[in-house]
Amino acid sequence: MGFKAPIEEYRFLFNQIFDLDDLLQTGDFGDADKEDIDFFLETMAKITEETIAPLQRAGDRHPAQLENGVVKTSPGYRKGYEVLTESGLVGISADVKYGGLGLPKLVQNALNEFVNGACISLGLNPLLTQGQIEALELFASEEIKDHVIPKLLSGEWYGTMNITEPQAGSDVGGIKTEARQIDSGEYEITGQKIFISWADADFSQNVCHLVLARLPDSPSGSKGLSLFLIPKYLPNSEGHYKIRNQLQILSLEDKLGLHGSPTAVVSYDRALGKIVGLPNEGLKAMFAMMNSARLGVGSQGVGVAEASLQSAEHYAQERVQGKNRDGKSLPISEYPDIKRILAVMRAQVFVARAICSYCAYSLDKAKMTKDQKWIDRAGLLTPIAKYFGSETGVEVSLAGIRIHGGIGYIEETGVSQYFRDSIVTTIYEGTNGIQANDLLLRKLGKNGDTVRTLVDEIIEKISSMKPDGSINVSFFLEAANKIKDVTNWLMEQSDQSSRLAGAQAYLRSIGLLLGGYFHYLASTHSDANDNKKVMALIYFKRIFPQIHILCDEVMVGCCDLDAIKFD
Amino acid sequence: MGFKAPIEEYRFLFNQIFDLDDLLQTGDFGDADKEDIDFFLETMAKITEETIAPLQRAGDRHPAQLENGVVKTSPGYRKGYEVLTESGLVGISADVKYGGLGLPKLVQNALNEFVNGACISLGLNPLLTQGQIEALELFASEEIKDHVIPKLLSGEWYGTMNITEPQAGSDVGGIKTEARQIDSGEYEITGQKIFISWADADFSQNVCHLVLARLPDSPSGSKGLSLFLIPKYLPNSEGHYKIRNQLQILSLEDKLGLHGSPTAVVSYDRALGKIVGLPNEGLKAMFAMMNSARLGVGSQGVGVAEASLQSAEHYAQERVQGKNRDGKSLPISEYPDIKRILAVMRAQVFVARAICSYCAYSLDKAKMTKDQKWIDRAGLLTPIAKYFGSETGVEVSLAGIRIHGGIGYIEETGVSQYFRDSIVTTIYEGTNGIQANDLLLRKLGKNGDTVRTLVDEIIEKISSMKPDGSINVSFFLEAANKIKDVTNWLMEQSDQSSRLAGAQAYLRSIGLLLGGYFHYLASTHSDANDNKKVMALIYFKRIFPQIHILCDEVMVGCCDLDAIKFD
Repeated sequence: MGFKAPIEEYRFLFNQIFDLDDLLQTGDFGDADKEDIDFFLETMAKITEETIAPLQRAGDRHPAQLENGVVKTSPGYRKGYEVLTESGLVGISADVKYGGLGLPKLVQNALNEFVNGACISLGLNPLLTQGQIEALELFASEEIKDHVIPKLLSGEWYGTMNITEPQAGSDVGGIKTEARQIDSGEYEITGQKIFISWADADFSQNVCHLVLARLPDSPSGSKGLSLFLIPKYLPNSEGHYKIRNQLQILSLEDKLGLHGSPTAVVSYDRALGKIVGLPNEGLKAMFAMMNSARLGVGSQGVGVAEASLQSAEHYAQERVQGKNRDGKSLPISEYPDIKRILAVMRAQVFVARAICSYCAYSLDKAKMTKDQKWIDRAGLLTPIAKYFGSETGVEVSLAGIRIHGGIGYIEETGVSQYFRDSIVTTIYEGTNGIQANDLLLRKLGKNGDTVRTLVDEIIEKISSMKPDGSINVSFFLEAANKIKDVTNWLMEQSDQSSRLAGAQAYLRSIGLLLGGYFHYLASTHSDANDNKKVMALIYFKRIFPQIHILCDEVMVGCCDLDAIKFD
Repeated sequence: MGFKAPIEEYRFLFNQIFDLDDLLQTGDFGDADKEDIDFFLETMAKITEETIAPLQRAGDRHPAQLENGVVKTSPGYRKGYEVLTESGLVGISADVKYGGLGLPKLVQNALNEFVNGACISLGLNPLLTQGQIEALELFASEEIKDHVIPKLLSGEWYGTMNITEPQAGSDVGGIKTEARQIDSGEYEITGQKIFISWADADFSQNVCHLVLARLPDSPSGSKGLSLFLIPKYLPNSEGHYKIRNQLQILSLEDKLGLHGSPTAVVSYDRALGKIVGLPNEGLKAMFAMMNSARLGVGSQGVGVAEASLQSAEHYAQERVQGKNRDGKSLPISEYPDIKRILAVMRAQVFVARAICSYCAYSLDKAKMTKDQKWIDRAGLLTPIAKYFGSETGVEVSLAGIRIHGGIGYIEETGVSQYFRDSIVTTIYEGTNGIQANDLLLRKLGKNGDTVRTLVDEIIEKISSMKPDGSINVSFFLEAANKIKDVTNWLMEQSDQSSRLAGAQAYLRSIGLLLGGYFHYLASTHSDANDNKKVMALIYFKRIFPQIHILCDEVMVGCCDLDAIKFD
């Protein structure tokens, strides 16, 4: 059974939960209407099912290779890249001024999930370019925007993000790559970057690297970083990009998964580049790309989780083991433990998808309204979307292996690939530990107001709804109030370590509350099918209660940890 | 940093928690004393650290290969196999009557953990042989025992377990391999077995397969299975095992991990074998091997978790990112979120190790006392040990990848191997779902008495101890009583599906209670070092509370699941 894009799930979210129509009618997102969006969904479903999904195994079994300094991509990837760029995916939410379609990120997020569910390795490529375009739109000179964005949209070029160096991982302030301005006004950049996704490929004419580096006499740490645009090829006197820039792909990593996506060590040796944004404000510009990529990575996790769920549900219904009392052969999906695992997987996928969609929707609302509330909301939801999307990818794909039993451990079946591929989504674009720290240190708002406003809104909405009887509303509200209490507790801690020790538990508790909120909305909606109601019930009985122990864990602080001695 | 056998951990468990001396002084375990055991620990620590640990990466990077029908093992495995068999590992708990050492399984379990922590792929080989010897001791004819067990002990032969067929996985009743008796009194066996671990190797003179098959006119299902001993080579007229039996290794699987351990499809075509035990009672005999292997698999999980923990703790102390306020470089182990992850890993490893040790100890007590209480206790603890050992392997090794960040995703570092290797321990020797079902359907005792007796003993012990103040005893007792309540609830359910839907949650809750019990014992013991106290505190604050939501989940039953519709 091949991958099926979860188009009905998104129709439900767009129509019943997030009101896409309301966004479209503002006129802030081009002149597309709901029918146009549905056509996009249908088109991308067809592309991903027919053309992209077959590349998933090809990339895994035939990883990208470095040959004579050029990355030779996996079989079929060139065609896949062409089809994706022709589909308009890269520019789906890009500014119409530079050739984008200007559609809501809510739609972009859905399409990204389709692509990454079909083939996450290839899917990473347009994700990065989407993020790069966003950074350029916000921070690059008009000259760069006019010149570069159309090339990125057409697929002639694609974009990468160069941050990490051997000594500078989560601590970007440790970056040592140097830049200096030359007479032409351009810059020469020298240094080595590692873990560069899609640093090179044989299927595009040029690669557009965004590189963090340090100008002479800049402050130390992250406040002394500037951002540079460094193309693989520079223009000759006729404006054709034919001159090789001074950068080299030194090696590719042999990774646990994501084999179709080349991960490179890149060396810059007086490579020519242009600055993007102001000197020493490079991190701000890079974060525009990073934030876009973080939501994108969330959608990667959801995509892999969806694909893994589909394969597990299919297998469990086909695989017969034993008979019931009447002598009828039983598919393993009928066994209570297997049924429970499948149900929990499905309930989790719904949550992760809804959270990523909500993050995208908030970005749309922020763009549309310029309202600080929505700007803060989108900021809050970005680490949660990245975290829940990626963790759901790992949890669901691990459960998928369990459903398959011994067969799941055999590489030939492709079951374990979902798992190997998805783990990296919990690591790159900021590890999930970093996401949780980001939430706690920067996204709570003054006195935790950003979280409190969200939780209050949820409480108000749930309280105003007519209870349908199957879900215990007071149980829901108790958990919501507990999160508010924990937020207050966090605000009262003068010791940063006390707060940070609970960062992941805190992020998880908010995500689980959002999960409850969306399951509740979905189940009470008149258009909800029976499975939506059942899933909500399963979620509230089997997953939602974890909020309480997570909140309790936050309030442990770090007193127990400080006493640990390492050998 | 290389692998270090956790010898101090076992000295602590042997001296302070399980009273090995008490076992030894009964005389039921040969004439070894504590010093002898300590010598064994030291010897095996040295062997595993120096000779076996280097094979871990070799097996992964150079998997076993099938060449001309013979399995060529990974580089260095022959030497490793020799050293392990010479060490006496295989016969450590085997009957002295046939050349074993007759030592407690408590000791065997410790040594097995060392070996599997050093190299799980090779470690699986002697584990299987240990289990085979146990099955033969209990069920084989004296002729077979006298003849075969010494060869297994010497390493001249090793043993395998042949159960699974394509259509018969968790449902062993579906086995179709046929056996028929021939004039000599021996049997001819014909059929195909899959997922056979260590089905062949170039480093031993013979392989001793124990194979489940069906005699003509046997009842259908699992009650019609008989067990056969089928050597790879049969004796010639001079008694030398030189004649190739009619069995073939058809292929090896390409697996997610455990690459050093060949997993084969084996075809038997009128292969000659002898029956072990009575006709149609083969499953009982195979379960003797299986139960031994289940505890062994638990120790594999603990071993991998220990190795993964060591590498994570080492890396986190070496890897510097950022500075503190005084400008001092900070290893990432100082960051609260990383410290918390490491602490939880360590607390988990202690629990899984203590549970496997307790299972081994109960087997020793059962052997020594013949007391039904200890027989039942060992039966109850076997699926819990297999489950917690293996799940801890997966959870801790996944956390190990997280600690390493991007580096953890690169195969060269070996970090992901722990993870790839350990997942299979949750699947083979009965998936962990099957372990939970086994617990619920067969191990609770009449009216749940086996569980209740265990919990009551724990309550009594904890209540009788002088509280040390740092751990809330009433909180502990509340959880223990909740498990008794849930056990009662399970007994009251007439519908089997209602019970089985909560099987994993129920097993987990008992394991977590045992974890609390052992952490508590360890922390209050006068010889406990500070870390034991800290670990107990961390466990009670961050892991133990999950018992409550697990118990609640058990009592959800399956009402929510029955309504699910698969697409």
